[in-house]
Amino acid sequence: MSFEPDELKAFVTRYLDTVVNGSAEDVAALYAEDATLEDPVGGGEVHIGRQAIAGFYKNTDGLEIGTELLTFRAGGHEAAFVFAITVGTMRIEPIEVMTFNSDGQITAMKAYWGPADVVQQ
Amino acid sequence: MSFEPDELKAFVTRYLDTVVNGSAEDVAALYAEDATLEDPVGGGEVHIGRQAIAGFYKNTDGLEIGTELLTFRAGGHEAAFVFAITVGTMRIEPIEVMTFNSDGQITAMKAYWGPADVVQQ
Repeated sequence: MSFEPDELKAFVTRYLDTVVNGSAEDVAALYAEDATLEDPVGGGEVHIGRQAIAGFYKNTDGLEIGTELLTFRAGGHEAAFVFAITVGTMRIEPIEVMTFNSDGQITAMKAYWGPADVVQQ
Repeated sequence: MSFEPDELKAFVTRYLDTVVNGSAEDVAALYAEDATLEDPVGGGEVHIGRQAIAGFYKNTDGLEIGTELLTFRAGGHEAAFVFAITVGTMRIEPIEVMTFNSDGQITAMKAYWGPADVVQQ
């Protein structure tokens, strides 16, 4: 299974838009039913399944969020990208890796960032 | 198992320096015996084991190579980073993900880039 880079970029763009404009359930709906989410990697918690994933995104429900795709790379059915996310006055630029199933649903998401990468603006 | 971000950054810096200054065997020695390498992701080939990995790096043995770490993120025992690699007049800025064992050896490397990311300079 493989996607064109432009298709994978469209999936990622849709995800970043939904994080800004959608509800936690809207974002979770972009994930496969049995998907996994680790954000941040090494943080000790892997969210498994769409319901747990919706719970993760509820943490930022109602907050002023912005996202911007900075660097995008793709291969096969995977994407890796650097993006900026602002939550209120906080800005982080994680590196994120996503894998997708044949329906274009996210099957695994890993976000690499740490406390030292958080900037107050 | 977990490393401090600075330790992981030192592993990655050593790797990028060895790609420039070392032999294919020197680079392969930074990998665990049973490590895997996929470069580029989706390219259809996963190199398994230190000997196969040395074979991969032999492709660029004797060529003029430069590397530069551009963006670095770490978590747990993993690192994700954007770097520039120049091989002769060709320049690529892949996003790479590495996992490490407790000895600091690379256990898995995945490099995300495609033909569209190659720049002639």
